[in-house]
Amino acid sequence: MNLDIISIGDELLIGQTLNTNAYWMSKALNGIGFTIRQQTTIADTEEVIIDTLKNALSHSDVVLITGGLGPTNDDLTMPALNKLFGGDLVRDEKVYQHIEKLVTNRGFSMNENNQKQAIVPENCKVIHNANGTAPGLWFDAEGKVVVAMPGVPYEMKAMVIEEVIPRLKAQFDLPEIINQMVYTQGIPESILAEQIADWENELPTSIKLAYLPSPGRVKLRLSSTGKNRLLLQQAIDHQIEKLKKIIPNAIYSAENEDLASTLGGLLLKSGATIATAESCTGGYIAHLITRVAGSSAYYKGSILSYANEIKVNELGVKQEDLNVYGAVSEQVVAQMALGVQQKMKTDYAIATSGIAGPTGGSDEKPVGTVWIALATPEGVISEKYIFGKQREVNIERAAITALGMLFRVVKK
Amino acid sequence: MNLDIISIGDELLIGQTLNTNAYWMSKALNGIGFTIRQQTTIADTEEVIIDTLKNALSHSDVVLITGGLGPTNDDLTMPALNKLFGGDLVRDEKVYQHIEKLVTNRGFSMNENNQKQAIVPENCKVIHNANGTAPGLWFDAEGKVVVAMPGVPYEMKAMVIEEVIPRLKAQFDLPEIINQMVYTQGIPESILAEQIADWENELPTSIKLAYLPSPGRVKLRLSSTGKNRLLLQQAIDHQIEKLKKIIPNAIYSAENEDLASTLGGLLLKSGATIATAESCTGGYIAHLITRVAGSSAYYKGSILSYANEIKVNELGVKQEDLNVYGAVSEQVVAQMALGVQQKMKTDYAIATSGIAGPTGGSDEKPVGTVWIALATPEGVISEKYIFGKQREVNIERAAITALGMLFRVVKK
Repeated sequence: MNLDIISIGDELLIGQTLNTNAYWMSKALNGIGFTIRQQTTIADTEEVIIDTLKNALSHSDVVLITGGLGPTNDDLTMPALNKLFGGDLVRDEKVYQHIEKLVTNRGFSMNENNQKQAIVPENCKVIHNANGTAPGLWFDAEGKVVVAMPGVPYEMKAMVIEEVIPRLKAQFDLPEIINQMVYTQGIPESILAEQIADWENELPTSIKLAYLPSPGRVKLRLSSTGKNRLLLQQAIDHQIEKLKKIIPNAIYSAENEDLASTLGGLLLKSGATIATAESCTGGYIAHLITRVAGSSAYYKGSILSYANEIKVNELGVKQEDLNVYGAVSEQVVAQMALGVQQKMKTDYAIATSGIAGPTGGSDEKPVGTVWIALATPEGVISEKYIFGKQREVNIERAAITALGMLFRVVKK
Repeated sequence: MNLDIISIGDELLIGQTLNTNAYWMSKALNGIGFTIRQQTTIADTEEVIIDTLKNALSHSDVVLITGGLGPTNDDLTMPALNKLFGGDLVRDEKVYQHIEKLVTNRGFSMNENNQKQAIVPENCKVIHNANGTAPGLWFDAEGKVVVAMPGVPYEMKAMVIEEVIPRLKAQFDLPEIINQMVYTQGIPESILAEQIADWENELPTSIKLAYLPSPGRVKLRLSSTGKNRLLLQQAIDHQIEKLKKIIPNAIYSAENEDLASTLGGLLLKSGATIATAESCTGGYIAHLITRVAGSSAYYKGSILSYANEIKVNELGVKQEDLNVYGAVSEQVVAQMALGVQQKMKTDYAIATSGIAGPTGGSDEKPVGTVWIALATPEGVISEKYIFGKQREVNIERAAITALGMLFRVVKK
């Protein structure tokens, strides 16, 4: 069953915005059994929208469109669709009330633009946009389906998950496609490939393997297509069990990409609590932890000691050690972890101190040097890493590595 | 002058790889005066490649293709192009020697696949690939141009910069294109559109305006095309000056998208320091601030008080106020801001307390309710917001809104 994705917006064509929508939708719709035939990005002009949509309908059963549904004058998707599918434009009362509520909650009152967004083509089904003012539009076209959604990623994603996918599943008979990810942390891609080479060579031909590296992590994808989901999943699970025996400490999850979320589950189960004392990661570890819903059950807080005086005054780091060893040192990072563990009365505590860059490095401690300490009920573990030159990547790798350290200890 | 970009590869269509090539090429080619008419992503099959290319040539003068040029059997771009443009396939001696050198340097000897990569259509110009084995192919087609390049990003980028752009500039008479962004914070898109409607209506027809919303922000893009870059820029700058008078407090930059970075520049200039006391934003504000290189000059740190006891013990929030008003209240958030300002001896301090969701809401304080306080040398300002239902979006909007509050105060 073929599906086309059309992305509308000048910002994509001038290289101002990366098209993450087409990427995300492809993954989601391929995941329920559609073959993505084509992704097309075009400008917001009526004629081009109509031509592109006609072309997409000539080879696909479903066409998903994002963008051009906003309240401003440069948004032309709705007039184009209305021209193609005919009928009048009418005001939808449910949509109107939803917009009114959103606008009022933000402390503004309804203006002409807001009112305009409640006007929709009469011969489409309206798809509720829980997170924004522009509704989605679902058109049935001789057994084929065209869905137009706003281009704002979080609005579109919620609509796809909550409305579009359930409706498409009900309407079309789709094959089963499994793309199972296995998430690993702590082993670089080239070494990982070497360690699991025998396992990879013995994979059945029906299962395809792909390596997907990102800072601090390597994801493995096992893919398989067929009719019986249960059998496909069993065959993949069997391979994952074999893999777990080869690299038991590197795999953190075969279900959840988010290491902080997997870690959170373990902490909840064990009733343990954590705190953080970040320097070079600047709050990013705390952000990863607290991004997880329910994290307040195990996360107490952080002393973010960017300035050295805060390390001394709030975390009890010895001024003498700062003078002798410097802030980026085993001595200081260990005291930071123990300091926050004691202060916040938690079971575990993570601390980081490093040189994120681009400046601040020396021959002895180059940019990318990061000390990570983990205080546990049994004492403190400190590790030194030398990451790369890019500030943002160093922050991300240090944070993921720190969470990986804690994960491996809590798992035991 | 229209240009089409065609990306070939299954990894793009199943949502495994984000299409950064089309994004990068669009920016580069738009930058030298091309209008990107369409980006298309398709699978590696001969028929689809030929159909898509014919369609692209029907509306564009230049078509750039990436992917499907590798040495393996699933790479079908070259046979497809050869079929379309006719002629024989011949071995290119220069390409052969280049491949031989690369392969030998890596410690291997030429195999069948390597030899195959030196075979190219006779009626194309070969484009040197300094960083890989697959050459680029340049076809002239009745005044139009088709260029095929490998999909490996760093190979493609070097070819575009060193070979493709210079040749296209020599062959086509291209206009100047300016895309100037103006970054705003604090006013929702629909309200912003209303406030600047008169200005928008009076824009000269040569300047196009686009609205690009993201959580907490709206970007405005002013675009213009013409022959004289200086005149175009002057006309746009004139409009931005007019705009600044209409919404002086909403615009944070016409140069820099990153609000934390613009704010950092102001703090550096004024010699002021800041600290944060985050609850619901969980370290995300600190992360946005410390992601900026050099932020240690003005950012001292944070007391991240996720648990109420930390609010009391570390920030001096009164237990009684927590009991009476709750953690998500004006009283508590103001004490948090003042507490960290005093403790870290900074000029400014930001504090947040809210219900990020998905649970924890009540009728009185629904999910999305966030109090933000800003401690300044003159006292404390507190504001209440009601964002949406999605945890991650609430965290982002609260953080951006808090930085916007601080920005507006520091700017004065």
